[in-house]
Amino acid sequence: MDKVRLGIIGFGGMGQAHAANLVAGKVARCELVAACDAVAANLAKYPQLRGFATPEELFAAKCCDAVLIATPHFAHTTLGIATLQAGLHVLVEKPISVHRADAERLIAAHTDKSRVFCAMFNQRTDPYYQEIRRLVQSGELGAVRRINWTITNWFRTHAYYGMGGWRATWKGEGGGVLLNQCPHNLDLFQWIFGMPKRITGFCTFGRYHDIEVEDDVTAYLEYADGCHATFITSTGEAPGSNRLEIAAERGRLVYENDKISWTRNEVPMSEFSRTTREAFGRPKTEEVAVNANGHGGQHIEILQNFVDAILDGAPLKAPGAEGIHSVELANAILLSAWTGKAVDLPLDGAVYERALNEKIATSKPKAKPAVEAVADLSKSVV
Amino acid sequence: MDKVRLGIIGFGGMGQAHAANLVAGKVARCELVAACDAVAANLAKYPQLRGFATPEELFAAKCCDAVLIATPHFAHTTLGIATLQAGLHVLVEKPISVHRADAERLIAAHTDKSRVFCAMFNQRTDPYYQEIRRLVQSGELGAVRRINWTITNWFRTHAYYGMGGWRATWKGEGGGVLLNQCPHNLDLFQWIFGMPKRITGFCTFGRYHDIEVEDDVTAYLEYADGCHATFITSTGEAPGSNRLEIAAERGRLVYENDKISWTRNEVPMSEFSRTTREAFGRPKTEEVAVNANGHGGQHIEILQNFVDAILDGAPLKAPGAEGIHSVELANAILLSAWTGKAVDLPLDGAVYERALNEKIATSKPKAKPAVEAVADLSKSVV
Repeated sequence: MDKVRLGIIGFGGMGQAHAANLVAGKVARCELVAACDAVAANLAKYPQLRGFATPEELFAAKCCDAVLIATPHFAHTTLGIATLQAGLHVLVEKPISVHRADAERLIAAHTDKSRVFCAMFNQRTDPYYQEIRRLVQSGELGAVRRINWTITNWFRTHAYYGMGGWRATWKGEGGGVLLNQCPHNLDLFQWIFGMPKRITGFCTFGRYHDIEVEDDVTAYLEYADGCHATFITSTGEAPGSNRLEIAAERGRLVYENDKISWTRNEVPMSEFSRTTREAFGRPKTEEVAVNANGHGGQHIEILQNFVDAILDGAPLKAPGAEGIHSVELANAILLSAWTGKAVDLPLDGAVYERALNEKIATSKPKAKPAVEAVADLSKSVV
Repeated sequence: MDKVRLGIIGFGGMGQAHAANLVAGKVARCELVAACDAVAANLAKYPQLRGFATPEELFAAKCCDAVLIATPHFAHTTLGIATLQAGLHVLVEKPISVHRADAERLIAAHTDKSRVFCAMFNQRTDPYYQEIRRLVQSGELGAVRRINWTITNWFRTHAYYGMGGWRATWKGEGGGVLLNQCPHNLDLFQWIFGMPKRITGFCTFGRYHDIEVEDDVTAYLEYADGCHATFITSTGEAPGSNRLEIAAERGRLVYENDKISWTRNEVPMSEFSRTTREAFGRPKTEEVAVNANGHGGQHIEILQNFVDAILDGAPLKAPGAEGIHSVELANAILLSAWTGKAVDLPLDGAVYERALNEKIATSKPKAKPAVEAVADLSKSVV
């Protein structure tokens, strides 16, 4: 096999954005051959592709080696399983599932390891996050003591939430900012720092918008080694912040506005504290230049890596199974907010699924918005 | 009366720092005449003053119109009450008390309103904080939606905590970073934003040092109008941060490194969100210069204001009774951390006093530290 024949299931905004890259030849050794969507008008935009109204028809046509799933979230699990069961390689958009139990089902379906199972965590290709991860995991920063990620620049308007009655409902999306906007950030968080052992979540539901899901979140994460973190996000703030601060033994690192600033302690802070005679002394510091160039290949790089994994056995940058972690973080924050109690990890997937199903049982499609939306998707694709 | 004759009770580091300013004539119409401390060597440093071993002797000598109390925290309440009962004006160092019930007792003792009762919240004289407060309280910033104050540049070494067996014990100080370093920040917080209705506190006790009290804190504060805040502090981080971020309807304000940055929304964010047709639009912004010059008169300005209030009836910049709020915030954070539950405000002072007394009952003086401290107090006086 010298190229991968790809189909896209879910041919709305994201599916078409991927198609544009593929048709433009940006992914080597990958031919987009098919698209699947219940809406014929979506398929009509790429008449050169074989169009299918249902995934079953696409599978039956046996025209694809691999499938990219870009449907609404809830279908990621069922279609991911169906794709693997059809014997195809699969790349699943984020989040890989809406809740942990579904993620476990999807991962369990990946029995044939000759098939590649990948997740679209394109922000892992960003050199800034790669460099921060390297500094943390190599030990150059020393033990991490405290983290704050304030990622509140996900501003979304009432018009945005008015697009489609399913959006920002428990039944339609299974969550709000944590499930739709933040899967990347939650994935990067666990990719850089690992998983916490306990989470306390504070969420407000429909604080800024007429929606039933969370649009404003603060979470407190506790790690087994005593490190702790705050994760703060919202779709109601403008201009909002995107600022990651790490307090580590070797100093303070801040990533904001495309700049990584590391104030490095010459002596680890706890060692200095333990050994100095000065009551009010502090370690000498130096400003260390941390360079990163651009934001990487993003979606195209993940697609290329998926193809290279299929054709050459290249190691995956975003293995599908790792997608369970960002799902679990989102679920734990919501469960804690609903119950008013801290949630210990690993989360019991069945407990969360029951709690979510209770929300879904009373979930209501939204009323038509007062203003009709104009969506420039180029401003949103992440 | 054309000048105030002042006595200082508690003539350790802070008391002597105040004395140096007063003896240098930095406070107009105020004559430092007396000092009181159980340690004769402390009194010997200012032989020109009348020295007293006990407050009772100082009161009996009737040589003072007013008293500044700069003892360890627990004595602030009892000596504040004694000073008022002696018919004198009183300026109490922060915190005015260790816990809310004590603060209530102190405030209740202020029955003769012809006597001035002031608290040493010198950071209220800082033009930066004054300007931020003006922007919030005038409505220029619009409704405040979220606040984060990360104030982790209170680094203290093992040698610091080794100075005196009483330090950083429940019995000796009644708390850690919240009672010793943060009263200013907690006071500024409530002075600028008002009091929350509910607090969840996460504290680690002796995380960075061999102490029994908290040296690392994250708190989540909820306001009646839906605004929420995180307050993060530590004495274990170096270099640490001091960064105040305010997300308000009229934009984002950040105060850090002696700079106030306000990214102003031309249209309030919620109004924009409600009225635009753009799904991914956001309000236009402009960078607004917010100027503040220097950090104000600090301790000297509060002392001068205290004197002016006594002699001229000038309005107080830091009325003593307002000191209960920072105490209550600190108490609520600790109580929440101890119980693992959110604490509703106003705090029940009796409940907290009982909980603190349980800690005090098993409190132990610390062992002698491995290194002997060298303390340059000029690096610490706030």
